[in-house]
Amino acid sequence: MEHPYVPRDLQLPGYVPVSLSQSTILTVYGLSSLLVVSLVWFLSGRSRSISKLDRLLMCWWAFTGLTHIILEGYFAFSPEFYKDKTGFYLAEVWKEYSKGDSRYAGRDSAIVAVEGMTSVLEGPPCLLAVYAIAKGKGYSYILQFAISLGQLYGTFVYFITAYLEGDNFSASPFYYYAYYVLANSFWLLIPSLIAIRCWKKISSAVQSQSQKKNKIR
Amino acid sequence: MEHPYVPRDLQLPGYVPVSLSQSTILTVYGLSSLLVVSLVWFLSGRSRSISKLDRLLMCWWAFTGLTHIILEGYFAFSPEFYKDKTGFYLAEVWKEYSKGDSRYAGRDSAIVAVEGMTSVLEGPPCLLAVYAIAKGKGYSYILQFAISLGQLYGTFVYFITAYLEGDNFSASPFYYYAYYVLANSFWLLIPSLIAIRCWKKISSAVQSQSQKKNKIR
Repeated sequence: MEHPYVPRDLQLPGYVPVSLSQSTILTVYGLSSLLVVSLVWFLSGRSRSISKLDRLLMCWWAFTGLTHIILEGYFAFSPEFYKDKTGFYLAEVWKEYSKGDSRYAGRDSAIVAVEGMTSVLEGPPCLLAVYAIAKGKGYSYILQFAISLGQLYGTFVYFITAYLEGDNFSASPFYYYAYYVLANSFWLLIPSLIAIRCWKKISSAVQSQSQKKNKIR
Repeated sequence: MEHPYVPRDLQLPGYVPVSLSQSTILTVYGLSSLLVVSLVWFLSGRSRSISKLDRLLMCWWAFTGLTHIILEGYFAFSPEFYKDKTGFYLAEVWKEYSKGDSRYAGRDSAIVAVEGMTSVLEGPPCLLAVYAIAKGKGYSYILQFAISLGQLYGTFVYFITAYLEGDNFSASPFYYYAYYVLANSFWLLIPSLIAIRCWKKISSAVQSQSQKKNKIR
């Protein structure tokens, strides 16, 4: 069966075409995400001590954590997803996404390394961040900072390796901009904002603690 | 000219063999590093307020920062180093190191991406860390934490991509263990120790600040 990916000479023996429509795939992801976000927003609202910004952050960490664990975790450990015949949703997601970046179907090692690290090393800590924010833990900022930096590093590796290899992995400009550029840009923008906020909070906490120590002396 | 690297079918047209001896290459790197470390240790010792551990950390950041900027910076932006005929030291370093990992000579895109990010995004901040520790800046811990995490992420990508591609890039077991495993293991061990220390320092500073705020309320 011929595949729809670029470069055209990519070898994918046993490829089975995507069976769900694009709108079905996107709607399921969108609605599941909306469900998770609504649930976290609603539950976190029952505690008066959590600020609206922190509740928003909890929604983000729940959403991105489950995306890392479920979607990216499936990809990282399913080298033969493109042969799936059952219409299994997670395989369909990556068959569809590969139209924006065929390195997923082609099992590029940089992609697999980054996705594996994202799902295993960053996914569970995202869920821990939801808990840490809710409980006001002292490690909440440094944890959010660490995950955000990991997300940024991974996204950088993702874009830079594509650039170095000629940036020719999209089936069309639509898929290039919608899947490759737009979808990933959220994981540049949001982690940057969170990292900057955590950096400021942490610097000022450390600063004020060291000033306190100096006064005691 | 035939190259000494593995896999044997790696194409390197225009390859010029390494002209300096292994001991010369290692001695120059070793002595330069010793000079930098001694200088930082001596100069930082003139301030009584800097602890011995902080002085040791300043030595590390100066050493690793200059390694990132000079050695890795040269590699990242010199795609044709293996054709160098002049015996230029930095080209010789990478011709020699490629015996431990031929992906350097072969210009593997994951390697180039990681080394480029390391030299540009982590190198200068390492030198900033030397300054931040010396001056007791409030951002000192979060800066050291951020760089250490970047170094760890890069080293993980480095090892995982090699593993995924069959781990067959060394000219012999000696080069495999001495260059690929041993040399890189320092950038797993030391950043891990620093990251753990910074995590603890930051968590406790944030914790004590939030307790102070609660008391004021």
